[in-house]
Amino acid sequence: MHHTPCDKRELLSQFLTFLPKNAVLSEPEDLHPYECDGLSAFRHLPMMVVLPESVAQVQQIMRVCYERRVPVIARGAGTGLSGSALPDDHSVLLSLSKLNRILELDPLSRTARIEPGVRNLAITEAASQYGLYYAPDPSSQIACSIGGNVAENSGGVHCLKYGLTVHNVLALKVVMVTGELLHIGSGALDSPGYHLLALMHGSEGMLGIVVEVLVKLVPKPNDIQVLLITFDDVAQAGRAVNTIIESGILPSGLEMMDQLAIRAAEDFCHAGYPTDVAAILLCELDGTTEEVDEHVKKVEQLMQNCGALAVRVAKTEAERILFWKGRKSAFPAVGRLSPDYYCMDGTIPRRHLAAVLTRLNELSQEYNLPIANVFHAGDGNLHPLIMYDANIPGELARTEELGGKILTLCVEMGGTITGEHGVGVEKINQMCDQFASAELQQFHAIKEAFDPLRLLNPGKAVPTLHRCAELGAMHVHHNQLPHSDLPRF
Amino acid sequence: MHHTPCDKRELLSQFLTFLPKNAVLSEPEDLHPYECDGLSAFRHLPMMVVLPESVAQVQQIMRVCYERRVPVIARGAGTGLSGSALPDDHSVLLSLSKLNRILELDPLSRTARIEPGVRNLAITEAASQYGLYYAPDPSSQIACSIGGNVAENSGGVHCLKYGLTVHNVLALKVVMVTGELLHIGSGALDSPGYHLLALMHGSEGMLGIVVEVLVKLVPKPNDIQVLLITFDDVAQAGRAVNTIIESGILPSGLEMMDQLAIRAAEDFCHAGYPTDVAAILLCELDGTTEEVDEHVKKVEQLMQNCGALAVRVAKTEAERILFWKGRKSAFPAVGRLSPDYYCMDGTIPRRHLAAVLTRLNELSQEYNLPIANVFHAGDGNLHPLIMYDANIPGELARTEELGGKILTLCVEMGGTITGEHGVGVEKINQMCDQFASAELQQFHAIKEAFDPLRLLNPGKAVPTLHRCAELGAMHVHHNQLPHSDLPRF
Repeated sequence: MHHTPCDKRELLSQFLTFLPKNAVLSEPEDLHPYECDGLSAFRHLPMMVVLPESVAQVQQIMRVCYERRVPVIARGAGTGLSGSALPDDHSVLLSLSKLNRILELDPLSRTARIEPGVRNLAITEAASQYGLYYAPDPSSQIACSIGGNVAENSGGVHCLKYGLTVHNVLALKVVMVTGELLHIGSGALDSPGYHLLALMHGSEGMLGIVVEVLVKLVPKPNDIQVLLITFDDVAQAGRAVNTIIESGILPSGLEMMDQLAIRAAEDFCHAGYPTDVAAILLCELDGTTEEVDEHVKKVEQLMQNCGALAVRVAKTEAERILFWKGRKSAFPAVGRLSPDYYCMDGTIPRRHLAAVLTRLNELSQEYNLPIANVFHAGDGNLHPLIMYDANIPGELARTEELGGKILTLCVEMGGTITGEHGVGVEKINQMCDQFASAELQQFHAIKEAFDPLRLLNPGKAVPTLHRCAELGAMHVHHNQLPHSDLPRF
Repeated sequence: MHHTPCDKRELLSQFLTFLPKNAVLSEPEDLHPYECDGLSAFRHLPMMVVLPESVAQVQQIMRVCYERRVPVIARGAGTGLSGSALPDDHSVLLSLSKLNRILELDPLSRTARIEPGVRNLAITEAASQYGLYYAPDPSSQIACSIGGNVAENSGGVHCLKYGLTVHNVLALKVVMVTGELLHIGSGALDSPGYHLLALMHGSEGMLGIVVEVLVKLVPKPNDIQVLLITFDDVAQAGRAVNTIIESGILPSGLEMMDQLAIRAAEDFCHAGYPTDVAAILLCELDGTTEEVDEHVKKVEQLMQNCGALAVRVAKTEAERILFWKGRKSAFPAVGRLSPDYYCMDGTIPRRHLAAVLTRLNELSQEYNLPIANVFHAGDGNLHPLIMYDANIPGELARTEELGGKILTLCVEMGGTITGEHGVGVEKINQMCDQFASAELQQFHAIKEAFDPLRLLNPGKAVPTLHRCAELGAMHVHHNQLPHSDLPRF
């Protein structure tokens, strides 16, 4: 699938028959901003970048590429953390950034119809005047776009209560690899036919190009309270998470930070966290005033029974925002403490939290690499940050090995190798651990059903069986249902 | 794909090498109970019925049928209303009824791992001792099984707040057409790879055989209140539904009945409904006591502003159950008033309720056939019951024509041809109205990815393009995103 310079010139001039000059980039200096997404360890220049401004242009681009058998890599805001939008030199990078209009916002149906390049936070900003907001809130929400959110099935702090992107999207328009336009989903709760709507979520640009999204909006809660709960033991904090959820209360956010993360965040933005504790939980409760009051009291009581050192309710809106600011800046804050860090993303069944946190601490000591933990505790989505120095010979390799062990641990616990960052190029090898060949084969059959020539984002997300065999990973722990024969802690 | 008697004898004896004698039925008198599902207008004897008792037996059955190229039709409890489980004389009917064990119920993770033949209500009964229940509650929940619920993506009264089956299932084990076992989903909120979990939901036995289901359980609410709200105008009741939802309150059930349905139900089970009103709404609110009290007051006020005649809150648990009993028995109650009735199932965007109810009344007069309306108003899922007499020449044909007009109306309004009953054989022609050829082609490609020989439930749910062309339906209203260029009312 390698192309000659001549092919490239021809492709360029064909694009220019229907795209304005500034919508086609091919000079190296113009291509550099597109050489990586948020996974900056992987970089490559694309052959060319196209920036369509309409659905019709996207369709024309796809038709041209399909006829010429040129691979296409879709790119949203480029904030992805697993390299799903990593270009290569024989592919066209299709940026959806200029498709950035909110087409319709209907406060009565509580929906917004938007183009894929609209930023996640811009939806909430536009809906705010009606007392509505868009629930999924990945940390990158200022920058990331809804098209990318669909491609990665993004989550965020609120997904514990309000679900992932797939739970908040009602319908899609998708341009197929052939250029044909597909209408998927409807305004109704369910649609006849196979569930193509969910299938597009998390498909990382490998099945089609999302060009329009109908999202659900939800009413802003009357009341929100945040509790800061402190512990002198990490495993105890993990058990407290389960106690809250098992009580029947569903917090709108339930986040955990360990001492390294707390100190980094506090030092960075003075959120008012105590720095002498082993772990904190941030528990956000939303709903009607009466409901929130009742739940705050119940959580306070539960946490005292769980051995919490202290429970502090944010007294003012300013304090509540400050509590969250510390959490949200934890990644860059840890970045200040260490020349480099590697942000992991995996999930485990929530009931194993205490055991896994203990094991992470052991692994950290074994590898002599500090791990800061700051994560979505309520849904068991871990984000261990391995701190290392790439300038120390061998430290990067040791970090990657440790990272691999952490993901294997997640799979062994009945969890997954990615919670919300996707597979991309970063975790393609771990897919061989996560799945048996039957599941991988079925993924390839699905791909074939949408893109038999494999022109859409080739080489990402789903490894070939050959690759898994070469990795020697075909003795897989396959993706078993929990509770069957998993180790118990 | 027609088989000789010899083929049948060979198949039978091959099954008997690994199945007990009473697990293979082939005598006509044994086959009769399986000749139809809940759509009794369509009947056909299967070639043979097999009743496996283990996943391994299901795998063996599939291996045998795959090798011999014998089609397989899966059947749950047989309560489906669209003929998804309709057999034919060259297919094996695979009943999952003996796979009926609850394998594990974990109150801490709030999950139950169950076999497909377990009845929907049996899950809630088993979970009840832990204060938990399984939320989706189709009207047939006493009898219908979880495997069938997955195949049809079943809803129920509570799906407005708690979602469809797809929103309440975490993982599946599926036997593929080849006999291979697939592990889909996990205990985590999201799994890497394509979203096979959602894809199996509503796939009507055409992609694989579900042999194990991991369902979510939810805590029973502290408090439940039901309001009976009466109106002297059906369209006004439709607008009131929107007023409630737009206020930000999400009822756990919001059902509507018109006068014909009210009178039938009241006459049948004395639920205490007033019979002189044009329509009633049943609005169920659940949550903490404080939350429910607040919402009850708010709904009362909203309904007074909407011109409701009266709002009655069920005073006792007995009265609450009675209010629901009337609703739940409305179908058989209408059945007592008319020699025959045809239960329709379609959805519309909720904001068009008033206009569609008005139009249904006009259609009823045009065709001189009474229509009783009793339906899930909150999610726009209509169930018009057309009352007719099959003994009057031409009346069945007129009923079917009217039914077709109602479904076309749903599609024109931006809705769908089925809300929760599936497509099966009943609505396969209407799929040509619902979808354009691009979407139908994609459905066939998905089918090909799972079952290239088309052995699983052939001829159901997804029409061939040829069939649509013959119906002359390729001038389709395709399944547009709502709000684009739909008629407004």
